[in-house]
Amino acid sequence: MKTLIVHAHPEPRSLNGSLKDLAVSTLEAAGHEVRVSDLYAMDWKAVVDAADYREHATSPLRVVPSSGRAYEAGALTPDVAAEQDKLLWADTVVFQFPLWWYTMPAILKGWVDRVFTYRFAYGVGVHDETRYGERFGEGTLRGRRAILSVTVGGPEAHYSDRGINGPIEDLLFPIHHGILYYPGLEVLPPFVLYGADRLTRGAYDDAAKAWRERLLSLETTEPIAFRRQNFGDYEMPSLRLKQGLEAPGRHGFGLHVRG
Amino acid sequence: MKTLIVHAHPEPRSLNGSLKDLAVSTLEAAGHEVRVSDLYAMDWKAVVDAADYREHATSPLRVVPSSGRAYEAGALTPDVAAEQDKLLWADTVVFQFPLWWYTMPAILKGWVDRVFTYRFAYGVGVHDETRYGERFGEGTLRGRRAILSVTVGGPEAHYSDRGINGPIEDLLFPIHHGILYYPGLEVLPPFVLYGADRLTRGAYDDAAKAWRERLLSLETTEPIAFRRQNFGDYEMPSLRLKQGLEAPGRHGFGLHVRG
Repeated sequence: MKTLIVHAHPEPRSLNGSLKDLAVSTLEAAGHEVRVSDLYAMDWKAVVDAADYREHATSPLRVVPSSGRAYEAGALTPDVAAEQDKLLWADTVVFQFPLWWYTMPAILKGWVDRVFTYRFAYGVGVHDETRYGERFGEGTLRGRRAILSVTVGGPEAHYSDRGINGPIEDLLFPIHHGILYYPGLEVLPPFVLYGADRLTRGAYDDAAKAWRERLLSLETTEPIAFRRQNFGDYEMPSLRLKQGLEAPGRHGFGLHVRG
Repeated sequence: MKTLIVHAHPEPRSLNGSLKDLAVSTLEAAGHEVRVSDLYAMDWKAVVDAADYREHATSPLRVVPSSGRAYEAGALTPDVAAEQDKLLWADTVVFQFPLWWYTMPAILKGWVDRVFTYRFAYGVGVHDETRYGERFGEGTLRGRRAILSVTVGGPEAHYSDRGINGPIEDLLFPIHHGILYYPGLEVLPPFVLYGADRLTRGAYDDAAKAWRERLLSLETTEPIAFRRQNFGDYEMPSLRLKQGLEAPGRHGFGLHVRG
């Protein structure tokens, strides 16, 4: 495998830092190639602005066409272009981050906002009344896989089917489906470590063992069975799931997973 | 009303900039006090790091205790302290932003990550086996209201109950419930403007009229009926919704809205 690890924690000696280091050593020891985007260490610029698109920025700034023009002209800033190149190099992408306010830290959201430009990650393929682009199962990153490795402060029950925070699979759906599956990545079930603020040494050892096992089975793990956009499951142009296709008991986000 | 508007778009002459300006002029003309946190204009620092907690940062950095210690010592950086003061000053908070990758732009997530410190927005009240803090209906910001005003590039059908992106109320739930309701804000139904990338002049005029009406009824609009954590609806310590309480047809995130 060629694995890109995108890491988002300010402290190298943190739990997240340890899990990232473990991923690097485990994958390299198994003979895989690994590259790391350690966003804090890189002093990653988190915020989209006109400078990202240089001479291709429209005035007034319109993010969609500006990012598409800069991308197509090969004129994105070197930091963003390097991340797009890493994504194209990789066959597997691991995201390591703590869940802050039920989603990714700002620095990682800023990586998405800046790296996932128009024409690279969205706005790919024909958009008209009969077809709304190549996404959700197609797209630039098709054929690659991704997995989230997430630390969570609270206990697992709070994130269960009836838990007060909402089910973890629903909290992660906008990332899994909306960010990763959108440009074509297949998404593996996440590795979630609960109770991260109060982890004992023994619990860490168990978690490390479980994470190693997940890392060594990335190539054989079945992805989440998200529905592909352009293969008959959705009405056009509404992109609503056709009646009768849902698996029993599936609702909301769950409609978009095959039975 | 005392209204804080938190605005997150890089271009003042954008649709988001226009809706923000409209909110300011509409509310001021109606005799309300308005303050604006224009995050791009403020060059808001989006990324949590040890510098946020100054001499109170632990080493290695642990974000939760460091932010709590700095908050309790009155030693947060002036930018963060000013935002906490504005939240305490306000009775109503309006968030104006574009939906980027199904959630808020990084600069706004960074406002949440940095301003919502331990002991201010979370870690409030007793946490033990019988009670897990004052949150979801209680907390520092209790008695205040919030509303999201969001622009969305795609068409409304894509965000409907069976739409491919997932229902908009589920996409916004982690913000509504997990970020705003958590520290005590009551959350009004959002103002969502679809098709924002292709808005005609007439459609903008209609949207502006609708937004003005929402702004002038902020004090009388019924909030989303999220369940309160500490008033009998949840088992302890699992914080799972008690059996039989759900309204018919409610699942997943919807369990946490009263029938």
